[in-house]
Amino acid sequence: MPTLKLSQIGELTLLEQIRKKFEKYPPDILVGIGDDAALIKHTNENLLVTTDMMVEGVHFNMDFMTPFQLGFKLVSVNVSDIYAMGGKPKFLLLNIAMRRNMDKKTIDSFFDGVQEAMKLYSLFLIGGDLSASHKDMILSATLIGYAKKYLRRSGAKVGDRIYVTGNLGDSACGLELLKKIKSPVLLDRTKRRAKSKELRAESKDTLLYALRSKLPAKGLKWNDIEPLLRRHIMPEARDPGRFISSATSMIDISDGLLIDLFRLCDESKVGARIYVENIPLSSQFKKVASGLGIFPVKLALSGGEDYEMLFTAPSSKRLNAIYIGDITESERVIVYPSGRKRAFSAEGYQHFSIHR
Amino acid sequence: MPTLKLSQIGELTLLEQIRKKFEKYPPDILVGIGDDAALIKHTNENLLVTTDMMVEGVHFNMDFMTPFQLGFKLVSVNVSDIYAMGGKPKFLLLNIAMRRNMDKKTIDSFFDGVQEAMKLYSLFLIGGDLSASHKDMILSATLIGYAKKYLRRSGAKVGDRIYVTGNLGDSACGLELLKKIKSPVLLDRTKRRAKSKELRAESKDTLLYALRSKLPAKGLKWNDIEPLLRRHIMPEARDPGRFISSATSMIDISDGLLIDLFRLCDESKVGARIYVENIPLSSQFKKVASGLGIFPVKLALSGGEDYEMLFTAPSSKRLNAIYIGDITESERVIVYPSGRKRAFSAEGYQHFSIHR
Repeated sequence: MPTLKLSQIGELTLLEQIRKKFEKYPPDILVGIGDDAALIKHTNENLLVTTDMMVEGVHFNMDFMTPFQLGFKLVSVNVSDIYAMGGKPKFLLLNIAMRRNMDKKTIDSFFDGVQEAMKLYSLFLIGGDLSASHKDMILSATLIGYAKKYLRRSGAKVGDRIYVTGNLGDSACGLELLKKIKSPVLLDRTKRRAKSKELRAESKDTLLYALRSKLPAKGLKWNDIEPLLRRHIMPEARDPGRFISSATSMIDISDGLLIDLFRLCDESKVGARIYVENIPLSSQFKKVASGLGIFPVKLALSGGEDYEMLFTAPSSKRLNAIYIGDITESERVIVYPSGRKRAFSAEGYQHFSIHR
Repeated sequence: MPTLKLSQIGELTLLEQIRKKFEKYPPDILVGIGDDAALIKHTNENLLVTTDMMVEGVHFNMDFMTPFQLGFKLVSVNVSDIYAMGGKPKFLLLNIAMRRNMDKKTIDSFFDGVQEAMKLYSLFLIGGDLSASHKDMILSATLIGYAKKYLRRSGAKVGDRIYVTGNLGDSACGLELLKKIKSPVLLDRTKRRAKSKELRAESKDTLLYALRSKLPAKGLKWNDIEPLLRRHIMPEARDPGRFISSATSMIDISDGLLIDLFRLCDESKVGARIYVENIPLSSQFKKVASGLGIFPVKLALSGGEDYEMLFTAPSSKRLNAIYIGDITESERVIVYPSGRKRAFSAEGYQHFSIHR
């Protein structure tokens, strides 16, 4: 059977299919997909809104990701922003521009990935827009959520401790692996779902074959590289729920620890001291980074796309999160185990910088 | 002075400038630009959300529009969607992807246009995202508003009259003019503002010179073409406020009268009869269309981008809007003055259609 192209389906038919797939709404959605705007019933909670755009070849590369993974990641990235304000995400709107000869199968897989993430975070798709692009795929998501207590970037106080919710650098290391593998890698769709052995076996074989011929390192195992690839390809946003009542400020790490900490410091008008030996690195990351000839701390400090939460809380609180530094009056430094200090600036991923 | 490029400014600096320009918020914005998400204080009204994406070369052409006009239009198009639900727009979020060598002047003009439209509709910019694109500029806007009574596409009843709020075809005719002029046309920024005679004179001369060499028609005047160009380049959304209490259904005409009426009929599960002689055509449109060799009714029925409201109301109501047809049980026809009927289908602009 020949592959069905988008140009043969038409925008209206595709919209109708998407509508059927996602049109199961809670009572507070008075109007969902299919009208000029979506209508949300008023509540007594404050409303959070975030929006984000991803351009093919700039923010993602279809040579490295399946459409399913892309759909999943687009949602996760926006959920992470709502979580970073202390909120609960709920309603999603998607704008998608695609080339006319896009496969129907690719589109369906993309929306399957969106749906998988929507289930994980209990979201509802309530609107958006489909259109044509010349060549690159362009995605834009808007996510609406609710907040009781909310956390700004601007609340950090001198003397507060700085925490993160998980390991840093895994995602950036996953990207380095993908650059060597140069093809999408199939992962189990969710870790929670019953393992599909066939899928796992297939991706594992393909992958290790590719790696054997490309990596200088020996002895890398699927169990070492899978979590790193997953953190980059299908990141799950961290719900900081249990820390919200104690935290004084919060931001999610999307552009890299240092640049996002710098932003938090700017907004809070404070400094920060980060202890390099406290930066949490996974054993897999350390092992694979060594195989790739990468210095792990550098990647963990500025790699980006960690989607862990970075937050501050008074030092009097005892929190079950990873303590990586302290808020200072103005000095912004990284402290090495030797005691050597290095000032940091807004390093990390700046889209318009001429230096990368 | 050499022209400053985006790559020399950097994303953070540009964000800071945008933030300063727009950071004047009403008390219901608890967090605006500059955090992970915007935070809107709860109210007792229901919330409307719409989002839209515009891709250079697909939805707009920088050979035909100034950056100021583009910014203005992006906002108007989204306001039109909120109006079409019977709502009041209030909060704007913008995602923008631009090539790295974009002029600072172009960016500033774009945001001036956004700001001009924001003033017109009393909006506040509360969030968004800036990033790089390969070549084409990509814009995505999300607009949030409030509604007391709201109007769906699905409320039309058999026997209702069909109305529009203004002339059709002007915008499509403006586009035809631009395709011949092949350059952006300067218009007074607003009709309400004191007229800048220099600007007007400059654009008029340039334009008439260009037209003289390209149009077969003689005797076209600036006063004829200006409203047509304006309706395409800097459309103002129509607030249907005074019709909301009477209307049973509403949609804004973005893709063309017939395709948008078809959508309204589909959602309402009814038919429609449109009387061609009732279609409102401006005198300028009729004059210029004749000069361009265009059949006005065809363009008015399917040209698109009119951004007039199309709505239905019981025939017992006497409304000061333009009555163009009646809602029927199932037949969907255009009736010509001769009495000849023609069935219509979902004609108009379908982005993925292979036929255009």
